Amino acid sequence: MEAAEIGLIGLGVMGSNLALNIAEKGNRIAVYNRTGAATEAFMASAGDLAERIVPCYTMEEFVAAIRPPRPIIIMIKAGDPVDQQMTALQEYLSAGDIMIDAGNANFRDTMARFARLRDTSLTFIGMGVSGGEEGARHGPSIMVGGTEESWKRVEPVLTSIAARFDGEPCAAWLGTDGAGHFVKTIHNGIEYADMQMIAEIYGIFRDGLGRSAGEIGTIFEGWNRGRLNSYLIEITASVLAARDPISGGAMVDMILDKAGQKGTGKWSVIEAQQMGVPATAIEAAVAARSLSSQKSQREAAAAVFGGGHADFSLSGGAGLEEDLELALFAAKIGAYAQGFAVMAEASREFGWNLPMPTIARIWRAGCIIRSQFLDEITKAFTAMPDAPNLILTPAFAEMLKQSLPSLRRVVAAAVASGLPVPALSSALGYFDAYRQARGTANLIQAQRDFFGAHGFDRLDGKDFHHGPWGSGLQDFARL
Amino acid sequence: MEAAEIGLIGLGVMGSNLALNIAEKGNRIAVYNRTGAATEAFMASAGDLAERIVPCYTMEEFVAAIRPPRPIIIMIKAGDPVDQQMTALQEYLSAGDIMIDAGNANFRDTMARFARLRDTSLTFIGMGVSGGEEGARHGPSIMVGGTEESWKRVEPVLTSIAARFDGEPCAAWLGTDGAGHFVKTIHNGIEYADMQMIAEIYGIFRDGLGRSAGEIGTIFEGWNRGRLNSYLIEITASVLAARDPISGGAMVDMILDKAGQKGTGKWSVIEAQQMGVPATAIEAAVAARSLSSQKSQREAAAAVFGGGHADFSLSGGAGLEEDLELALFAAKIGAYAQGFAVMAEASREFGWNLPMPTIARIWRAGCIIRSQFLDEITKAFTAMPDAPNLILTPAFAEMLKQSLPSLRRVVAAAVASGLPVPALSSALGYFDAYRQARGTANLIQAQRDFFGAHGFDRLDGKDFHHGPWGSGLQDFARL
Repeated sequence: MEAAEIGLIGLGVMGSNLALNIAEKGNRIAVYNRTGAATEAFMASAGDLAERIVPCYTMEEFVAAIRPPRPIIIMIKAGDPVDQQMTALQEYLSAGDIMIDAGNANFRDTMARFARLRDTSLTFIGMGVSGGEEGARHGPSIMVGGTEESWKRVEPVLTSIAARFDGEPCAAWLGTDGAGHFVKTIHNGIEYADMQMIAEIYGIFRDGLGRSAGEIGTIFEGWNRGRLNSYLIEITASVLAARDPISGGAMVDMILDKAGQKGTGKWSVIEAQQMGVPATAIEAAVAARSLSSQKSQREAAAAVFGGGHADFSLSGGAGLEEDLELALFAAKIGAYAQGFAVMAEASREFGWNLPMPTIARIWRAGCIIRSQFLDEITKAFTAMPDAPNLILTPAFAEMLKQSLPSLRRVVAAAVASGLPVPALSSALGYFDAYRQARGTANLIQAQRDFFGAHGFDRLDGKDFHHGPWGSGLQDFARL
Repeated sequence: MEAAEIGLIGLGVMGSNLALNIAEKGNRIAVYNRTGAATEAFMASAGDLAERIVPCYTMEEFVAAIRPPRPIIIMIKAGDPVDQQMTALQEYLSAGDIMIDAGNANFRDTMARFARLRDTSLTFIGMGVSGGEEGARHGPSIMVGGTEESWKRVEPVLTSIAARFDGEPCAAWLGTDGAGHFVKTIHNGIEYADMQMIAEIYGIFRDGLGRSAGEIGTIFEGWNRGRLNSYLIEITASVLAARDPISGGAMVDMILDKAGQKGTGKWSVIEAQQMGVPATAIEAAVAARSLSSQKSQREAAAAVFGGGHADFSLSGGAGLEEDLELALFAAKIGAYAQGFAVMAEASREFGWNLPMPTIARIWRAGCIIRSQFLDEITKAFTAMPDAPNLILTPAFAEMLKQSLPSLRRVVAAAVASGLPVPALSSALGYFDAYRQARGTANLIQAQRDFFGAHGFDRLDGKDFHHGPWGSGLQDFARL
């Protein structure tokens, strides 16, 4: 029997879909699941694709079915189960075999697993997969971290199953050890910001302008044909148009306003904090989800403060809807600029040499944040690979100059009318602080020197690092 | 010779000042330093206080000089040195002795140290000390985590050296293991937000209104006599009034606008994220410091986007200066509300049973954020200990209602004129989202269900958790 090109352990929904995708693209694959019944059910559902799938019921036959060096995708619940599976698998493997964690791992766990295998003849790949169940089945975006040699072994299979944008596969090797899972984490952080900004614009339409879900959906549908063209805008339009089968009203109006989260947004923010890179738009989005879950407190606060707000109105500008579209566009630039800045710093810190144009390229299709916009980012970073920030590339500087006045008008108007726009205003605050050659941290340094003798540098470079605060210190001592 | 009540290891500036404070308040103290020369120099500088200080040059004589059970303050560089010192000390100690880390430790390290001693007859205290060098010498705020029994042993000494507010000592036992260092961390997070908000108001005066440092200092001096009365406002006034001995101009105008940070702000944000509690004003402050340090990028961005802004102007309201004062006051309420909410969640998560009124009480004097305002918080939490949020206490709800319109006007005007106000607007965004009984997370839940089948709950509670997105999923599959 012909050897399989790759193996896969774990036939849950994601694993099954990935296996079918692999087989459909002409690759032979061996599959294994802890319970044989799931394997049988999977094979029964595979249809014609079953001819390229080798169902295995013992670890021995599974490993024997794969062409060495064996790439084996582990697609099971993240966390301890992955470590246990690695241990169980390890004794059956041979020199050069590659364990691939395709689950939703924290990149620090991935780095630990990579290190764990470093002194063996085996190796490890941490593989970020975005696109949900349907993406796994028909074309995800695939972010790979591991050795370049192990990537070469899996590249043909992974590029065959990935989503395509203009014919180019959305799969790439991004760096060693945790690089792939780190980039996937930041992808998700950006996704949180993207979604929150859309929700804030939706809130302005709904609460500030009294528009119905259907009316708002039509506007998003139109926006999806312009500069905001993207999967998230597309599904927002679909979601807003959908009717509730029970009440007959708009589906979205029947959904409880408590948002869940599974951790990757939080991880993005924590890592940005660890490295001291501002990621305020992502932070605002994560905080907004947390706040949404405190529904009973919000109801109590509405009773105390009134939940109401004045109508939303704009003066000047390009017209209401175009201003809102441009505002969302400008804020989106901010979220992506922050996400890419976090990756740039991580690349330095972890020695990954992350290829920014490639990351943007493989996010253009397959993943949740896929968009035309990411093609623009690909071009901008290709033209200026060492740009310290996305907004300093000529193309994005120009886009931002055109859209920033709208973001400013929209945030000012939302603030004035009491509509919460934390992510939009975080992006604006980021731009306004970032373009200040002379900020206000001189006062903070003076305060820190005053109470903690932390010292400061001078604008004129003179070697004199403490202020003449004598009397103040005595004041303090008196307390 | 009479036994010492307490011992102290580490005669750096903080340790020396703490030892002198302890002696000055009538307590007998034994001191030890790795190098004996430092001990001699310290004794030579102690003056009359030397009679209550027992200088020790070996660990044996140091331990022998202290009355059992022996409380021993370790005041050395945070991190590994503390663990090494603990190991070195451990063999000389007896049952019931208490090692006290008074350094700037991460509470997770403190918890690990506490656990490390759990199976011995010794115990551990993690002690947060705020107030800088002068505070250590004349009266700091002291936040203690450890067993109640160990607290009883050190309470007389610690309350004798702490700052006092209306006669009450600013030292307290807050809970077991890491409670003290955690509360100190959040104190510092709030301090970051407080300082950043002051810097933003300063920026409005300087860049939006063209006021000189001296003029702004005079305004802060006035504010210090009103509702904003606090150490940070007081020193801001002093700092702004100070002249540069070299140029003769305002000192603050000569200081480079790059702010440093030592980690506690970052720790606050990371822990808030870990627990899913919004701390956006603290986050904004930490991000602003990080952004300040990217001076060359800011200069590049100013060249691209222009660093300028329109003049700042307010319409309506209570008058310019009073509006700015009230805006700062409202934003400050937000920062404290977030900080206390983070502590409330940590209290649940770590089983500390943190006493909120007590925390506010011991922050009223001695520490960097000390203020009249904290007396108000003490009263509010005493009257309503189970308040889910500071702003839901009647007193703060009232203060916020009076000041929120000013914060709204100021943020809207700053946003319109291009002045960065990230912390002020984060506080405002927090209020506006918090008082929304019906938020916009329903759209986010719909999106998440659309692409990830995450499900949602309905407002009507019906058992129907997925949307009718059939056509959308097909759309997605086509990609």
